[in-house]
Amino acid sequence: MRLTRFTDNALRCLMVLGWEPDKAHTVQSIARSMSMSYEHLVKIVQRLAELGYVETVRGRHGGVKLARAPELVRIGDVVRATEESLALVECFTPGTNACPVAPACQLAGFLDDALTAFLAVLDQRTLADVLEPREQLVPLLRTTPTRLARGRG
Amino acid sequence: MRLTRFTDNALRCLMVLGWEPDKAHTVQSIARSMSMSYEHLVKIVQRLAELGYVETVRGRHGGVKLARAPELVRIGDVVRATEESLALVECFTPGTNACPVAPACQLAGFLDDALTAFLAVLDQRTLADVLEPREQLVPLLRTTPTRLARGRG
Repeated sequence: MRLTRFTDNALRCLMVLGWEPDKAHTVQSIARSMSMSYEHLVKIVQRLAELGYVETVRGRHGGVKLARAPELVRIGDVVRATEESLALVECFTPGTNACPVAPACQLAGFLDDALTAFLAVLDQRTLADVLEPREQLVPLLRTTPTRLARGRG
Repeated sequence: MRLTRFTDNALRCLMVLGWEPDKAHTVQSIARSMSMSYEHLVKIVQRLAELGYVETVRGRHGGVKLARAPELVRIGDVVRATEESLALVECFTPGTNACPVAPACQLAGFLDDALTAFLAVLDQRTLADVLEPREQLVPLLRTTPTRLARGRG
């Protein structure tokens, strides 16, 4: 059981933006600072923009920035929206299910309860929680923005 | 986020055995009754035997049977043992992690709490719970054993 790289990198992208919420970052600089693939991050930023988590700023100093306060970005919601599927087993997808006992089986219900508990824990956490401890996290970025390195936080 | 087919099929295999706990089933008949790949199921049965959930009976009417009462098979434990990895994101595996902020990042801890909650729900359920409602489930099997079809349960 694993989250997709898409979700993992979406969360990392939001962290980079969250540390400097007023600044527009280029996708290239976000990718570099978190050691992510640029091409993959382009798709992630597009999806995060569709979802309303980030917005694009045009112009010379343009780029991507957070569209909401970090306190309003629930980790559970990000996971729900960025995971390609939360179908834990094949019978969660009736169209392609091959398990013959699915119509009466309770296992799917138990797994669904477990998934609900998983997401409920993440709903109690926001991007703001993940941005701490800022003074330890920001210096670990591969390319620390000057402003941040000077101890703005 | 998805459980592996290995775990999904391991649970289905345990269900078939649980409906007739005193009988040794051939791997072929288990595979047929749950529409599973025979080759895949051979590996699953080997693993379930290593884990002590099933045992092999030799001889003419030999095969595989449950090695524990269904009440003693916790679904959470089966998932823990059969999932190849419960490393939700790459930083759960320090040896191959590439995320630079991992040393101070709290996200891994939040995800670990969520995983604990997920498994805790499944720890409250046993194979015995999944075997019900027997009178509805058993007739759905692709090849219903005669003894079961006659309404033993």
